[in-house]
Amino acid sequence: MPVGLQAPDAASLRPVAGCELGWAQAGIRKAGRKDLLLIRLAERASTAGVFTRNRFCAAPVQVCREHLAGSAPIRALLINTGCANAGTGAAGLADARRTCEAAARVIGCMPSQVLPLSTGVIMEPLPAQAIIDALPQAMERLAPGAWLEAAQTIMTTDTVPKAASASCELHGGARVTLTGIAKGAGMIRPDMATLLAFIATDASVVPGVLAELTRRAADGSFNRITVDGDTSTNDSFVVAATGRSAAPAIASLHDPRCAQLQGALSGLAHELALAVVRDGEGASKFIRITVERGRSEREASQVAYSVAHSPLVKTAMFASDPNLGRILSSVGASGIADLDPSGVQLYLNDVWVARDGARHPDYREQDGQRVMRGTDILVRIVLGRGDASASVWTCDLSHQYVSINADYRS
Amino acid sequence: MPVGLQAPDAASLRPVAGCELGWAQAGIRKAGRKDLLLIRLAERASTAGVFTRNRFCAAPVQVCREHLAGSAPIRALLINTGCANAGTGAAGLADARRTCEAAARVIGCMPSQVLPLSTGVIMEPLPAQAIIDALPQAMERLAPGAWLEAAQTIMTTDTVPKAASASCELHGGARVTLTGIAKGAGMIRPDMATLLAFIATDASVVPGVLAELTRRAADGSFNRITVDGDTSTNDSFVVAATGRSAAPAIASLHDPRCAQLQGALSGLAHELALAVVRDGEGASKFIRITVERGRSEREASQVAYSVAHSPLVKTAMFASDPNLGRILSSVGASGIADLDPSGVQLYLNDVWVARDGARHPDYREQDGQRVMRGTDILVRIVLGRGDASASVWTCDLSHQYVSINADYRS
Repeated sequence: MPVGLQAPDAASLRPVAGCELGWAQAGIRKAGRKDLLLIRLAERASTAGVFTRNRFCAAPVQVCREHLAGSAPIRALLINTGCANAGTGAAGLADARRTCEAAARVIGCMPSQVLPLSTGVIMEPLPAQAIIDALPQAMERLAPGAWLEAAQTIMTTDTVPKAASASCELHGGARVTLTGIAKGAGMIRPDMATLLAFIATDASVVPGVLAELTRRAADGSFNRITVDGDTSTNDSFVVAATGRSAAPAIASLHDPRCAQLQGALSGLAHELALAVVRDGEGASKFIRITVERGRSEREASQVAYSVAHSPLVKTAMFASDPNLGRILSSVGASGIADLDPSGVQLYLNDVWVARDGARHPDYREQDGQRVMRGTDILVRIVLGRGDASASVWTCDLSHQYVSINADYRS
Repeated sequence: MPVGLQAPDAASLRPVAGCELGWAQAGIRKAGRKDLLLIRLAERASTAGVFTRNRFCAAPVQVCREHLAGSAPIRALLINTGCANAGTGAAGLADARRTCEAAARVIGCMPSQVLPLSTGVIMEPLPAQAIIDALPQAMERLAPGAWLEAAQTIMTTDTVPKAASASCELHGGARVTLTGIAKGAGMIRPDMATLLAFIATDASVVPGVLAELTRRAADGSFNRITVDGDTSTNDSFVVAATGRSAAPAIASLHDPRCAQLQGALSGLAHELALAVVRDGEGASKFIRITVERGRSEREASQVAYSVAHSPLVKTAMFASDPNLGRILSSVGASGIADLDPSGVQLYLNDVWVARDGARHPDYREQDGQRVMRGTDILVRIVLGRGDASASVWTCDLSHQYVSINADYRS
């Protein structure tokens, strides 16, 4: 059960001119399941992506990087679930290329204009022929209004589809639309982004500018969430700007419309990223960890992730047990060699739990208990060392997380 | 249920001349439970310790460091479970000192000759008076043969007591005895050692040499295990050399008997450390992760811990599911920026799973399945980058881990 998250209403998802989506059932891992998504982009759309830094990055991630570095504009994305095509060596690369060639044939473009994206089990060969055979199905279904079906198609252990729309009016009066989809739900500690998020906008943006907007959007969203601390082999976040709105092209980061579009893009990416956490595997709590007054953002982030990854903190959250000394222990174990515990404050929502490194004299167990019983919890840690802060979002560690990941392949 | 580990036979635990142990029921967290251990050492014993690097280290750890740095030889250890006395600020320090003063009175020594050690819930005040009131009970029971009761007394979520003996003949013909105890079972990723391990020997060793022997023993044992990646506030490993054997004092690291004693001490520490993993919270598998052919021991160790801490690897182990691509993903996410996946080999016991970064063509699921069904699993990762190697020992992540840590305080 996701925490405070419902499936989006299809009517709330606005089509983006120049972007069509079509799904198919390729039977990649299981029969009778939407598992293949084809996305067709308008000619001359700009596309940018950020990808996992896992050194065992998947074959499709390698092909995406290569195709995005080329000069031909991207015309299609081909996304499959059920198989990650990672840890598959040269054969995996050849399989990814074959599916690009097949998609290029049905779309009518070059293979280098196709981005392949995969998610699923690692170290198993990609059933490339099944994907190729299902392409005509997906092609027939291509439609600009199929965002909800697209979000459903890329789900793996997600319990609800994740999709959202935004829009903004740019200087000059033109309104642009953005719609995106994402999937989680485990192996989530994105280190560029989580597999898979895709956002399309009808704004017109030159590729270099779009790449920077995408990087910034990832940094404030997908790169700030963690479910289990495991960085996937397949994390990918792709943004396409079709240029079909009335707004003239944004060709420079100094264009004032850049900040406007960044706001809308980052907001949408943030919304999708938090949906991934709310639907994290086995999640029963949605937890924001904010670390303030660190010496640097890096150190604040290091402390936040140390707490977010602690199995002991996460199981206490699951149990709604205010065993909050575990949070102090995680702060202490985060690797800041000269941290002075007596300068540390800990708050849980509105409750001041630890003052100057020890339990606050006015803290009462029932106050901690009250906060822990809720589903949305803010852990605020004040280090008292500087002016930098950082937040990460995470969920608890439940029996269901263990069940899901013990049973995932079966 | 611990993995291949039974409670030690009391008869196998050899008394160490100059070391007596006595337990009491102080009612620290629950009534009717052995929760206080007093250890009395011979006059002029040498004592050394290594302690957690967690910056929120417990008050007793701070007092231990202070007392070990002093010139008066340690005469007693006072160990309690039920309360960690960490995250307790100045009041916690005062409480730790009060218990040392009381122990000094019953033993007949100075407070600076007592080492206090605590384990239990963090950020709760130490019931110092209950400890002080129970001291006479413990004093009355002091006996050189009470090692098994001592091991029982320091248990928290441990399911079996951990204790072992060793002996070695030093050059010159004198035989020395070593007996030790340890407890786990969660918040185990020691960064010096795990709370609590204590080893006594009747060898005679000057303090400076004993400190180095202790550090080396910790590095090869307690510092190579992890249950959940959480470094505790209270990790402490203390070694006492009573000097009661017939062997003359070891006064230099160049004394050839040093290597002999180091061998026995390291072996015993290793045995106790592995017992902690075998009885890790909820453990159903005992896993050794060996990383070979890294550029440095540091990098090999980094990869080993990345795999050992991956919840996805640990849940797959729990399920006996050879979803082994997760191991490759953990290797890739371990932070080695220039790792070449195509140089990586993966073995599970005798099964070659991945060759040159991809599934071995001869690998069969049933071979992986056969290994995973066992309880003792060796994960061997060959990086192909250099000549350094490292091993860590860990266990799986089970439903029981979640249950234990969701219920720990209740």
